[in-house]
Amino acid sequence: MHKPFHRIALIGKPDAEHIEETLPSIYGHLLRRGCQVVVEKSCARFLAGTPETHELSQLGLHGELAIVVGGDGTLLTAARLLADQDIPLIGVNLGRLGFLVDISPQEALTKLDEILDGHYSADERHLLRARILRGSEVIREQTAVNEVVIHSWNATSMIEIVTSIDGAFLNSQRSDGLIVSTPTGSTAYALSGGGPILYPTLKAIVLVPINPHTLTNRPVVIADDSVVEITFRPSKQFRAQVACDNVSIPDVEVSDCIQISKEPRPFRILHPLNYDFFEILRAKLNWSSGYRN
Amino acid sequence: MHKPFHRIALIGKPDAEHIEETLPSIYGHLLRRGCQVVVEKSCARFLAGTPETHELSQLGLHGELAIVVGGDGTLLTAARLLADQDIPLIGVNLGRLGFLVDISPQEALTKLDEILDGHYSADERHLLRARILRGSEVIREQTAVNEVVIHSWNATSMIEIVTSIDGAFLNSQRSDGLIVSTPTGSTAYALSGGGPILYPTLKAIVLVPINPHTLTNRPVVIADDSVVEITFRPSKQFRAQVACDNVSIPDVEVSDCIQISKEPRPFRILHPLNYDFFEILRAKLNWSSGYRN
Amino acid sequence: MHKPFHRIALIGKPDAEHIEETLPSIYGHLLRRGCQVVVEKSCARFLAGTPETHELSQLGLHGELAIVVGGDGTLLTAARLLADQDIPLIGVNLGRLGFLVDISPQEALTKLDEILDGHYSADERHLLRARILRGSEVIREQTAVNEVVIHSWNATSMIEIVTSIDGAFLNSQRSDGLIVSTPTGSTAYALSGGGPILYPTLKAIVLVPINPHTLTNRPVVIADDSVVEITFRPSKQFRAQVACDNVSIPDVEVSDCIQISKEPRPFRILHPLNYDFFEILRAKLNWSSGYRN
Amino acid sequence: MHKPFHRIALIGKPDAEHIEETLPSIYGHLLRRGCQVVVEKSCARFLAGTPETHELSQLGLHGELAIVVGGDGTLLTAARLLADQDIPLIGVNLGRLGFLVDISPQEALTKLDEILDGHYSADERHLLRARILRGSEVIREQTAVNEVVIHSWNATSMIEIVTSIDGAFLNSQRSDGLIVSTPTGSTAYALSGGGPILYPTLKAIVLVPINPHTLTNRPVVIADDSVVEITFRPSKQFRAQVACDNVSIPDVEVSDCIQISKEPRPFRILHPLNYDFFEILRAKLNWSSGYRN
Repeated sequence: MHKPFHRIALIGKPDAEHIEETLPSIYGHLLRRGCQVVVEKSCARFLAGTPETHELSQLGLHGELAIVVGGDGTLLTAARLLADQDIPLIGVNLGRLGFLVDISPQEALTKLDEILDGHYSADERHLLRARILRGSEVIREQTAVNEVVIHSWNATSMIEIVTSIDGAFLNSQRSDGLIVSTPTGSTAYALSGGGPILYPTLKAIVLVPINPHTLTNRPVVIADDSVVEITFRPSKQFRAQVACDNVSIPDVEVSDCIQISKEPRPFRILHPLNYDFFEILRAKLNWSSGYRN
Repeated sequence: MHKPFHRIALIGKPDAEHIEETLPSIYGHLLRRGCQVVVEKSCARFLAGTPETHELSQLGLHGELAIVVGGDGTLLTAARLLADQDIPLIGVNLGRLGFLVDISPQEALTKLDEILDGHYSADERHLLRARILRGSEVIREQTAVNEVVIHSWNATSMIEIVTSIDGAFLNSQRSDGLIVSTPTGSTAYALSGGGPILYPTLKAIVLVPINPHTLTNRPVVIADDSVVEITFRPSKQFRAQVACDNVSIPDVEVSDCIQISKEPRPFRILHPLNYDFFEILRAKLNWSSGYRN
Repeated sequence: MHKPFHRIALIGKPDAEHIEETLPSIYGHLLRRGCQVVVEKSCARFLAGTPETHELSQLGLHGELAIVVGGDGTLLTAARLLADQDIPLIGVNLGRLGFLVDISPQEALTKLDEILDGHYSADERHLLRARILRGSEVIREQTAVNEVVIHSWNATSMIEIVTSIDGAFLNSQRSDGLIVSTPTGSTAYALSGGGPILYPTLKAIVLVPINPHTLTNRPVVIADDSVVEITFRPSKQFRAQVACDNVSIPDVEVSDCIQISKEPRPFRILHPLNYDFFEILRAKLNWSSGYRN
Repeated sequence: MHKPFHRIALIGKPDAEHIEETLPSIYGHLLRRGCQVVVEKSCARFLAGTPETHELSQLGLHGELAIVVGGDGTLLTAARLLADQDIPLIGVNLGRLGFLVDISPQEALTKLDEILDGHYSADERHLLRARILRGSEVIREQTAVNEVVIHSWNATSMIEIVTSIDGAFLNSQRSDGLIVSTPTGSTAYALSGGGPILYPTLKAIVLVPINPHTLTNRPVVIADDSVVEITFRPSKQFRAQVACDNVSIPDVEVSDCIQISKEPRPFRILHPLNYDFFEILRAKLNWSSGYRN
């Protein structure tokens, strides 16, 4: 059993269906428990009274625990913005189970009580950090919970991506792009690209080529303390896109180097005690249903 | 045995390696045989004398046979531009075997003699035509030898593609895009996307989803007289790209319908008598080499 | 509208759940309509009275239409055994939708009335025939509705399979085996092996390698009038298994040749007028559900 | 720099091509260096004089270092049999590069000198141990360098495999089987089955389903200190095969449990100082060659 939580940050996805029911229900419950609650700005309008509000990125300064109500994407954004504030997160979905938002609205109040009382399991996950190097200077950087994607800017032309790992040349591939994914991201875009499922706490990163020209170019799983460096073969016809969890890094040039490495400090996601990653996997991937009689 | 050819159109890829040797060699050989030769404009500079030149798209009016010297891409372009002029094509590569440019420079003169004398096999292939419908009006159209690709304009967001075949709803898929490929294109981009190899003369079209969100969304092969229609689920966040063999169709809007069907008139590719598609397949896909001892 | 049906053959899967309700219900209904009904032997015990019974393989001599109650496997067997008797089939499932048994028990009586009155659509499908050639002699042969599978007899060793198509060498592959599938079979075992979905009436066959040693060995789709011949590279350590729709052909030796070709005469499956293959595909493959929010 | 080696065990693949040249060349070289050499029994006939010979499984008692001349399979066998004797291995191939036998015969003498003098890099790898549990008793056990494969005994029927990891139920899948692979094995059979490439020293195990009935059943990568337990759904029609690196474990019954876990003690493979795993990967998987121009 862990220390109970008292000061809570509440975050929601304002344009999501059912948010106007689930958010006030949780908010009211927290107040009735005697919690202090601070609320992400855009969510105040769903709540009665005048809750204390802050920008999402400031919430870690005011709460001991963040409750995120929405989809996996909502929790991704919160985790990325709060990563350096050492505040654990809980994910509550709005009727559709997520890999990260694993608590359903029906059971939310009971499960939250459990967790707030200190009965929970925590799993630690790491973000990736992508740094854009122009010469020896870092001109931009961004973190990702799921994946860093390098993508051809123009769908009609492949790019040639040169990858090295810890300074050792891995390969040069013509493809539509490359996904560098955490275990958390391995059940998201990387899975669509043909990557394997990595157990969430595995200390690994997976590189998944997107539609590679060379068919033997398969996903490669490496240790998560590796540094991945990506450059491009000079070519007149393209610009690359680099995105961290769907957030584009603008103005990357073909002569830049993209350096990707694990953020040293983990973030924590808390789960009810009966949390079972495999159960979520089975539900999300329809593992109980087959197509043959 | 077929009728010999006399009036020849010569097409090359001006910026390719070795073009400055192979093109004059073929040109000289044709003249020595007594052929009449017309030349694609951008290639005249490699040739001695003052050859008769024309735009690529006009060459079918002046020749009975087009010899294309370059890569598969060069032949794709020529086939697309000459498709309505009923002129057969021969492909000569510049040292790197292609699926379409199957005659190597070393054997080019001998093989060309054979074909010009009427000893060849012909295979008929069909282009696809993509029509962009805005309401009931066709606002743009374009043909493709390999494939029509519908692609998310923005690499950071998936699109939702609604496909119907001959008026029957197939599916609605979230993905990075969809490849609609001819048998000719099945060994090109569609193969990178996970599609099957279609025998070149099979009367079929294959639909290959690109990184689909639903993992059971697999390539579907349908008869080549089917009409494929693609629309999009309304969404604020994207524009689609539509490309035919890497040529973009500009300004497609999310409310447009993309109708794809086979061009009724085939184009012909001529091959030396010993042509063997499977031999090319084995060579291009390294089928003789395995990774395990 | 077609000619109505009067003499009906009724076939069921005796050990299936719910067969003891669905079979008598259909049987009674047919009698009340005034149909003459003959019944497959093993099913008589579910039916009141003393129905006329026959061996499955003789039913085509006594009925104009066969109603098959069970799973896809039940219909596969019936189609294989009745293929030379030119009797169309209808598939009724027992609660679990199949690709071939597309009529659910709830709607069975209504749909059967429709079809018996001559309101239906028919689709024609072809079986494959596998012949085992020892020298120039056919020592065994067997037909398949779904697929012919060549498989290593021993799971611990790969076999080397040499494939030719219409006499032309395709490739020699080390693998666990090869699936040669009809369009009907393309949604069965071939799909698990990574093959594409073929539209049921496409005139094609697909060859799907099973765990090939060479990663570029991909499914190949060919015209259905092709003759596929398979031999083995001499090797001391294995025997091959050949199976047609899960029925093993015994005693195939490594020096035998397996010749696979389409049966010239099609068999017919009848469907209610609102039959929609794509709808079944979407239902069986869970195409409405994705794993990402 | 490490301690030099003096007492060497020499192992070869007796029926391999070129073994009769490479083995004596290495043997002679070792003697000239003044090494003490013991030889695996079946190899003595290639060597002049009367070398001291032993069973393969005893060689670790007589040597400080084992030189294995053959293919990856030869090294697999040696590693498995010598695993508990704490003797490092070097792999010399016979003209065909392997993942494990990375020293070519041309450079063998030079590279061996380097390594014998103590100039090498070592990588530590772990075997898996498969235990067959009948009730609470271990009735058989076997180790594997590459993979443990559970396979349907009969190619015409799928088995239903129930997998749990550290006591937590993962899934129940109908398929042809399951591969449980080490990183070393990830470039062997598991790769043919669609698994990812794991960096050799990654602390992970990958589970690769073989032709699973449910298409979303994808490879899963877990930490290598996990215990994998496999049981079967009762079914009358099959027996399972269990194999460790192609060595079958006989007489496994459907009611047995197969427990797979990492061997605690690693074995060591020594490489010349310029060893580069990625270089071998690129060579073995033809990563420099693409199929499109």
